Amino acid sequence: MKKYCYGICFLISVAINISFGVNLYIGDGPNQEISCRSSLTWSEKAAAEAEAVAAISCSGHGRAFLDGSISDGQPVCECYGCYSGTDCSELSPGCAADANSGDPIYLEPFWMQNAADTAVVISGWHRMSYEYADDPMMSPELDKYIRKLHSVAGNAITQDRYIVFGVGSSQLLSAAVYALSSQNSSSPSNVLASTPFYHLYKDQTRLFNSKNFVYRGDTNSWQTNNTDVIEFVTSPTNPGGELKKSVTGGKTILDHAYFWPQFTPIPGPSDHDLMIFSLSKLTGHAGTRFGWAIIKDKDVYDKVLNYIYLANAGISKDTQLRVLKVLKVAMKADGKPFFEFAYNQMSDRWNRLTSVFSKSTRFSIQRRHPLHCNFFHQTRQPSPAYAWVRCERQEDNDCAAVLNAGKIIGQSGSTFSAKDRYARLSLIKSQDDFELLMQRLTELVSLENHNIEMI
Amino acid sequence: MKKYCYGICFLISVAINISFGVNLYIGDGPNQEISCRSSLTWSEKAAAEAEAVAAISCSGHGRAFLDGSISDGQPVCECYGCYSGTDCSELSPGCAADANSGDPIYLEPFWMQNAADTAVVISGWHRMSYEYADDPMMSPELDKYIRKLHSVAGNAITQDRYIVFGVGSSQLLSAAVYALSSQNSSSPSNVLASTPFYHLYKDQTRLFNSKNFVYRGDTNSWQTNNTDVIEFVTSPTNPGGELKKSVTGGKTILDHAYFWPQFTPIPGPSDHDLMIFSLSKLTGHAGTRFGWAIIKDKDVYDKVLNYIYLANAGISKDTQLRVLKVLKVAMKADGKPFFEFAYNQMSDRWNRLTSVFSKSTRFSIQRRHPLHCNFFHQTRQPSPAYAWVRCERQEDNDCAAVLNAGKIIGQSGSTFSAKDRYARLSLIKSQDDFELLMQRLTELVSLENHNIEMI
Repeated sequence: MKKYCYGICFLISVAINISFGVNLYIGDGPNQEISCRSSLTWSEKAAAEAEAVAAISCSGHGRAFLDGSISDGQPVCECYGCYSGTDCSELSPGCAADANSGDPIYLEPFWMQNAADTAVVISGWHRMSYEYADDPMMSPELDKYIRKLHSVAGNAITQDRYIVFGVGSSQLLSAAVYALSSQNSSSPSNVLASTPFYHLYKDQTRLFNSKNFVYRGDTNSWQTNNTDVIEFVTSPTNPGGELKKSVTGGKTILDHAYFWPQFTPIPGPSDHDLMIFSLSKLTGHAGTRFGWAIIKDKDVYDKVLNYIYLANAGISKDTQLRVLKVLKVAMKADGKPFFEFAYNQMSDRWNRLTSVFSKSTRFSIQRRHPLHCNFFHQTRQPSPAYAWVRCERQEDNDCAAVLNAGKIIGQSGSTFSAKDRYARLSLIKSQDDFELLMQRLTELVSLENHNIEMI
Repeated sequence: MKKYCYGICFLISVAINISFGVNLYIGDGPNQEISCRSSLTWSEKAAAEAEAVAAISCSGHGRAFLDGSISDGQPVCECYGCYSGTDCSELSPGCAADANSGDPIYLEPFWMQNAADTAVVISGWHRMSYEYADDPMMSPELDKYIRKLHSVAGNAITQDRYIVFGVGSSQLLSAAVYALSSQNSSSPSNVLASTPFYHLYKDQTRLFNSKNFVYRGDTNSWQTNNTDVIEFVTSPTNPGGELKKSVTGGKTILDHAYFWPQFTPIPGPSDHDLMIFSLSKLTGHAGTRFGWAIIKDKDVYDKVLNYIYLANAGISKDTQLRVLKVLKVAMKADGKPFFEFAYNQMSDRWNRLTSVFSKSTRFSIQRRHPLHCNFFHQTRQPSPAYAWVRCERQEDNDCAAVLNAGKIIGQSGSTFSAKDRYARLSLIKSQDDFELLMQRLTELVSLENHNIEMI
């Protein structure tokens, strides 16, 4: 960056000063400051540091971060899986494709393309208080934009509903169970989910080991007449990507983490009593732990709010500021640029994935059913975040192990309380990860078609 | 700001370009970029926005924030208590002094004085992953600086200890109870604390209503031989400010939120099995929900880590970046500028407070005992975050109500499981709040000395 800048700094700055002079007459609010570089004072050092780190080349196979470990006075590249070297340029041959985690890096390019609009500058004295002026824990501005977002995406009713922020949707899952559970310890509520389901439902309920509720396993195995049921409904499902409804008719926690136009057609706005959404799968900012619950009933709202307050006195104000900025950009032009970018990423990946699996008899993936999407105003195939792979051969009863032998790392079915004949492959990681996954899958399927057995 | 800039922009930028040219030869890492204003690209808009908001005048009696509510295209001032108007210049006469909350705004001036070093610029793609390169949840750089901080402050042993980050110290309090509690539901662990104590110990334990532990109240009332005890020890105490040790000899959670040189002399580094610290009371960033636990035992560490992982998959990466930046500044020059500023604020306030209470027979405050402080290398009085007021008159058995009649809002003793003859007054809020508190206390004591009864 320096060498480009050095030669032309002088001319640029002259031009800047002229444009600044003009701005004095045509300026309109804070933005008029922007072209006056000389107006920057206390924020400039941090801005220069951030740009210097962003300019460190990691060959597109990694990133340098402000809080990365330092070498020679500069943060070092953190390379994506299978890449190494100071600039992440070295691909390690025979490296396994890691499709294990739900790390939503597939949206990183969008945020890089929108760098200027999504950067956030936080002053040293930004919101030191526990409270906002008009709310003890939650940013009223952010609440407002979340409601706008749902009306733009058309995926949830927020009118006359309460919204509570949580540390990721994960915290809200347990807060919701507490809020819906029996207050009578002698008859705890029964927590259920339909297999295959996200392991956290079971793990959290068991960890808290509360007198108020107990984990009872799969909805299908629930035969008693006990109606005090709290059912986790994931819609779209993880894994699978199907839209679901409650099967028990009990109290329901709608986990809508994946209910966004890039993953599923949106048939219409969800209107359930307790719906949970997550920034992670919407914008890809998993590292920014932020989720929200939309709640119909005042008493349930008060209990969820009390849980968040007592557990950790709310969500970091820095995080809420960043989320506000990110959502404002995602909602530009009624969300079209953002959701189209995200959908195109996912549908391209699904097109390539299905063409590989279409050549296989050994492996199958979930069927997808087209639906009309009210956001895109088209009938579209879902493009779920995960492939749910079934190993068809009788002997392949540990599908994750079979894939692993083919240098593909996935999650075994039992992680989702399903059979190990199934395995989950993540499709939302970085482009590098996806390309390697395609390569390994192609190798695996071609071996099959050449009748060469896996070792 | 613009009019100053306009006339001299050109000369400044020429000077900048010359200095930048020089920097090419003497530069040493990212900082060399700083003097090249022309090098800023994507971060400049956000920097200009942040500075424009910071420049909004709220008369020193309030702040405007980037995520504040908007009027005429600009965020509006959020006024401190008792002030109102678009620029917070109107003091409402007869307004009550609010000394209720532990909002640590007393350090805001320090961060404003260090604006350039504490600003953080977060790119739109900053740490989107759930994980760091070398850790699934926690920034290794931040871990490193927290250890340095404790060796600078001399208040805790971190060598051969594990550190876990939490969403404020509040989350770590409950994580610690889980980690130390019985795994046998038929004999739950007994959670105790010494009165007066922070209400969250009781409230969290009751909220979670776990089979593994049960809240048993005050340590003094604990007479049984049951040795499965988890004791909360707050040192310095809240309220009171005294250094404490375990009285039961059971498993101990050392809440060290206030164990910093501005509140108490540091006799030496704390060396307990499980110690919990909080950013809120250290740097005043209560809105940045961040705390950490220092743990000796590997098994306890694993359990606390598992709790944080299952509860919310760790702390927001944005928050961890800001905490890193703030701590780096607090530790400059071995922490002297920061801790001296903070200590001077607190000791000045205590000097003024004690002079008011010295004139009263109706109200008394806690005795403070001087100790040698290893950080300041002097024997000093503690300067606790709160005054613990006792109403001495027989009939004043609701001290908070008596203060309230004198237009002073405090927390009643029962909030801390103590008698209502006591009340807590916060001394760490903004200077405005403290000045008004002094005024109301002076009025109250002068009434007493003129033998005029309160209504």
